[in-house]
Amino acid sequence: MEKLTVIKVGGAVVEDPEALSSFLDRFSAIGGNLILVHGGGREATRTASALGIESRMIEGRRVTDAAMLEIVTMVYAGKVNKGIVSGLRGRGCRAIGLTGADLNCITSVRKPVAEVDYGYVGVVKSVDVATFGALLGMEAIPVVSPITCDDGGQLLNTNADSLASAIAVGMSGMYDVELVFCFEKKGVLLNPDDDDSVIAHLDPAGYENFKKDGVVSGGMIPKLDGAFDALAKGVRSVRITNSVTLNGYSGTTISL
Amino acid sequence: MEKLTVIKVGGAVVEDPEALSSFLDRFSAIGGNLILVHGGGREATRTASALGIESRMIEGRRVTDAAMLEIVTMVYAGKVNKGIVSGLRGRGCRAIGLTGADLNCITSVRKPVAEVDYGYVGVVKSVDVATFGALLGMEAIPVVSPITCDDGGQLLNTNADSLASAIAVGMSGMYDVELVFCFEKKGVLLNPDDDDSVIAHLDPAGYENFKKDGVVSGGMIPKLDGAFDALAKGVRSVRITNSVTLNGYSGTTISL
Repeated sequence: MEKLTVIKVGGAVVEDPEALSSFLDRFSAIGGNLILVHGGGREATRTASALGIESRMIEGRRVTDAAMLEIVTMVYAGKVNKGIVSGLRGRGCRAIGLTGADLNCITSVRKPVAEVDYGYVGVVKSVDVATFGALLGMEAIPVVSPITCDDGGQLLNTNADSLASAIAVGMSGMYDVELVFCFEKKGVLLNPDDDDSVIAHLDPAGYENFKKDGVVSGGMIPKLDGAFDALAKGVRSVRITNSVTLNGYSGTTISL
Repeated sequence: MEKLTVIKVGGAVVEDPEALSSFLDRFSAIGGNLILVHGGGREATRTASALGIESRMIEGRRVTDAAMLEIVTMVYAGKVNKGIVSGLRGRGCRAIGLTGADLNCITSVRKPVAEVDYGYVGVVKSVDVATFGALLGMEAIPVVSPITCDDGGQLLNTNADSLASAIAVGMSGMYDVELVFCFEKKGVLLNPDDDDSVIAHLDPAGYENFKKDGVVSGGMIPKLDGAFDALAKGVRSVRITNSVTLNGYSGTTISL
């Protein structure tokens, strides 16, 4: 099987022009089959605030009413996505910006209302593997923003980590897939105050211990749950690392 | 040669949710090879104003500094484009939203500074016909927003009428192309106060006379100049009409 690297780049990298430029320099040098999934992070909060709309976050997820959906669509699918796509064009790549609505490439369903109604928030139901395959066949780099779409044409705000995992899992039937989560740290840290205390390898037993000891907590838990889930569903390898060292240093490698 | 219809839908249709919905109902029923180019119009002015940024228009063209480029990218490539693409998905179509940066499909150059510096405004230099052909071959409907890109990766705000003409001309080497400008009037009017006074056919001699008499003036002149230019460069037919009657009534047919 051909290799495919699915890279998720987080909001903290995307919202800092210098960090993004440095990431794109390195990303554009990787070569081979690539899919990039980006977050948007605090850009949407800033734009909403400038427009007089308050952001409400519950457990790290954005409550998305109709006005907020318009803002995240503008910021993630407009500003951030086209900033990345044009940045890649300037670096000699051929990228294609996508939401789930484009080419009907991602189908999601609205997150069911449990204790909290998150509004227009989507959970990925399916990935159109043939469409991504066709774009890769055109030597294009799909750049996917965290806005997906249900069958009825409703846009839905979607967690970018989950989206990257779902795409990696979907493509693993067709490609030998490596999934890389790029964020602002070098990897999963043993000591959050020591940037060099990267845990090089993490397996399920180690993960359970680190969770028990509180070494791993907060937003790292859904990211790692997603990583182990992706491995169980056919992705060959998952790494968590910072963007700057994408081509060299491995960060934390997750294995079963 | 296979047929291709390139449709430009104007800002006044796009910014009115009911008019847009009615347009998409009709558009989604056309079938065959289609490319849709949309404007954005006053949406960008409203968003800019809400963000405390003043819009400056000179001869109907928007002066686009870096802050305004960010806004038109958010509004045209984000909100408007994804609204159309998701609306088409909800109507059973498979659309793909594009700026000129996506797949490097449109290359423009920054409009030279003459009396006025319009800032980040682009003039289309080339259309990647093979890329549009490949997307049509995937049975996708390209939905192009008026944001293009130069070779260096600089996004540029671009006149949507000119963009539609350039795409129609580019594609006419490969397809039998009809270009339709959809706007809020039934066609080019003999009497601007009488919506039913549509000029059914317009040739270069008639156009010159109507310009002399002042029947045709203002924003209609660049639109018609573009129409005649497109015909001279290989587009088979050009029509100017309102969106609602796209599938029946012809509006004004332009011929050489």
